Amino acid sequence: MPTTVLLPRWLIPIEPRRVLTEHALIIENDQIAAILPAAEALQRYASAEIVHLPDHALLPGLINLHAHSAMTLLRGYADDLALMTWLNNHIWPAEGKHVSVGFVYDGSALAIAEMIAGGTTCANDMYFHHGAVARAAIEGHFRMMVGCSILEFPTPYANNAQDYIDKALSCIDEYRGEKLVGFTLAPHAPYTVSDETFRLVIEHADALGIGLHCHIHETQDEIDASLKNHGMRPLERLDGLGLLQQKLVAAHMVHTTDAEIALLAQQGVNVSHNPASNLKLASGFARIADQVAAGINVGIGTDGAASNNKLDMFAELRLAALVAKAQSSNPEALPAWQALEMATIHGAKALGWQDRIGSLAVGKQADLIAVNLASAGTQPCYDPVSHLVYAADRTQVSDVWIAGQPVYRQHAHVGAFAATALARAHHWQKQIQETHA
Amino acid sequence: MPTTVLLPRWLIPIEPRRVLTEHALIIENDQIAAILPAAEALQRYASAEIVHLPDHALLPGLINLHAHSAMTLLRGYADDLALMTWLNNHIWPAEGKHVSVGFVYDGSALAIAEMIAGGTTCANDMYFHHGAVARAAIEGHFRMMVGCSILEFPTPYANNAQDYIDKALSCIDEYRGEKLVGFTLAPHAPYTVSDETFRLVIEHADALGIGLHCHIHETQDEIDASLKNHGMRPLERLDGLGLLQQKLVAAHMVHTTDAEIALLAQQGVNVSHNPASNLKLASGFARIADQVAAGINVGIGTDGAASNNKLDMFAELRLAALVAKAQSSNPEALPAWQALEMATIHGAKALGWQDRIGSLAVGKQADLIAVNLASAGTQPCYDPVSHLVYAADRTQVSDVWIAGQPVYRQHAHVGAFAATALARAHHWQKQIQETHA
Repeated sequence: MPTTVLLPRWLIPIEPRRVLTEHALIIENDQIAAILPAAEALQRYASAEIVHLPDHALLPGLINLHAHSAMTLLRGYADDLALMTWLNNHIWPAEGKHVSVGFVYDGSALAIAEMIAGGTTCANDMYFHHGAVARAAIEGHFRMMVGCSILEFPTPYANNAQDYIDKALSCIDEYRGEKLVGFTLAPHAPYTVSDETFRLVIEHADALGIGLHCHIHETQDEIDASLKNHGMRPLERLDGLGLLQQKLVAAHMVHTTDAEIALLAQQGVNVSHNPASNLKLASGFARIADQVAAGINVGIGTDGAASNNKLDMFAELRLAALVAKAQSSNPEALPAWQALEMATIHGAKALGWQDRIGSLAVGKQADLIAVNLASAGTQPCYDPVSHLVYAADRTQVSDVWIAGQPVYRQHAHVGAFAATALARAHHWQKQIQETHA
Repeated sequence: MPTTVLLPRWLIPIEPRRVLTEHALIIENDQIAAILPAAEALQRYASAEIVHLPDHALLPGLINLHAHSAMTLLRGYADDLALMTWLNNHIWPAEGKHVSVGFVYDGSALAIAEMIAGGTTCANDMYFHHGAVARAAIEGHFRMMVGCSILEFPTPYANNAQDYIDKALSCIDEYRGEKLVGFTLAPHAPYTVSDETFRLVIEHADALGIGLHCHIHETQDEIDASLKNHGMRPLERLDGLGLLQQKLVAAHMVHTTDAEIALLAQQGVNVSHNPASNLKLASGFARIADQVAAGINVGIGTDGAASNNKLDMFAELRLAALVAKAQSSNPEALPAWQALEMATIHGAKALGWQDRIGSLAVGKQADLIAVNLASAGTQPCYDPVSHLVYAADRTQVSDVWIAGQPVYRQHAHVGAFAATALARAHHWQKQIQETHA
């Protein structure tokens, strides 16, 4: 691949927390080769391909920290129902009937197409038929952490916990060495996995040096059932089993006491906050502001398309920032920068991939997105970070690179009335900024 | 204008609650002339212009029930701040310095460009320099209810309550007879308007036969201040003053007791629910499910772009449907159909325009939007109403007509990987639907 020089209006490396202007980012092969002043870049890389991004913010691709990608095929199949009605009468029967290698490949491919077009370059998945998920990621040139679901009960994919584990191990072996794909073991949830299986899964993950992914404290019902069946809340039980580690992504964590938040922080557990799904299923309002304040590494996920119903990380990070304020009665909670970090570098850390992705730094993988902020909904622009979090649509993503390869490009058209309105908006921005200074 | 025959995949009249297929909608001049089976339409209107919308839902344009359009020029100017810091140190100084006829025209035009591109065809505004708002609407061919703000304190626009009222009355007179524009008197809020002014405003509205628009119960602070200054909650005070009428749009209504909900229902007051703004400013979670259950006519608004920060009615109605479930701990609360009705016919009723807009019916104004559901994020499609509420982006709006005139058209491009994924999604939808039947 030729060396590429990107010249964005705003370059947002995420680490450090600043917005660079008049700077260029250089892609060589699959990596970020340099970030330097634009003039210097044009001199040093005179023969490179130049990509002008005059109205664009350039930032790391977003990381979806909790997904069931193949469930796009059940998007909008059943909505507005109580959780157990939804699962028992709709989702589980449909999955039981249809989930197969073909279903999982096609559903994952659809999810990848949707995610890439919306600026997501990496997802932390959890589903069945892991090989099909991995293949879709490789063929779509998408970065995927494939979570191998493990449960006690049989599904069309496997018969029992040992069978799920065996299939996971053989799949992980098959895809060893693939650059875009990693694996986690994903014991499904406290209410679907026994103590013995949790212990076995942790042993295997330790032996393989891979991460863990589990739904934890999603609903009050889950906690009540654990109190009844185990005499303690799920988190206490999982702590006793040794699951609460730095390599765990705990999805949801809606219901947490102060002591539990302290425990999660102390153990270095990563949380995937999935606000749309938690609201839609009426699971509750997660205490994200408190979790972040306690030092927990919190990322953001969409959950599956059956309970969201879009894999839109821009919508999700905006929702996270909005709900955190009302939930904590504090309009200063989860400001724009923090929300953007959650959707990028925090996600990377949660996957153990912080040396590879999540920020724009020399030597990291060139997983990048350009967001065109020229449209009416993001003008005027006093602060591109505010717009990325509170105002931008995912469809303003104009260009996506994954591992240095351009995987998406889309350019928008602006009509005449809007064009005039935009020109006037620039005029006012200048006036307002001048008097403010 | 020529007669136009629209042939959508799905025709969603809103009233009644059904989705028509193989149907056509006919536009003649500014009105909906007919809705009839497609085959019959093609025969009866053989010489008309035909618009094929093969992947599209056709529905009434969305109605933004609470907006401060001109504030687009302060979009993202200050975020993540406590309300009084935000107002006192940022928004009010900027408004004091810059708000003028030019600012209001340009900001309103930008808002109109943004709203039209996002499928909103009508807004219930509240700001200053009403003539500039009306002019922007007329020139942008947008339907606008212009709210004339009335306060006690001076701004660059007017000196005192009487001055605001005089300016409102003269502006209303100037624009009499304009088809796209209506007016309300908009006493700003209980904490900025005296009893005497409220009484005077109601008298004028009665005399003119126009509506009222007021911020009510937005924050707990507002209620506490009223208890201190008036010895009662704002709603009780406003009830005593005679404001609680069918022609009132009460914006926000975040904090409501059971008795207050009953009072609002009994008086026929319309509520504009503005979830993004209420979350962002940490105002609280409105009891929308309870308000709707009590029979209150609740519509949806974006509020101004300084506290949202997008005028995106698709994002807003999705947020309303999601938050209502978690707020009421009931995943069945505010189902998709109800949310869509809130953003269309309920908005129309709140403005007293239910005979003119808000649903697709013969004789109503042709304020229509087509939403292309063919993109990855809205496939497969089991139910277009679910996708419009939970999955669609505003940028999927492909065509907008206001009063019969086409005011927007945008067509999207789909890449090769996504195109294949989409074809496979259709295959699975067919499989899943067949076994479910």
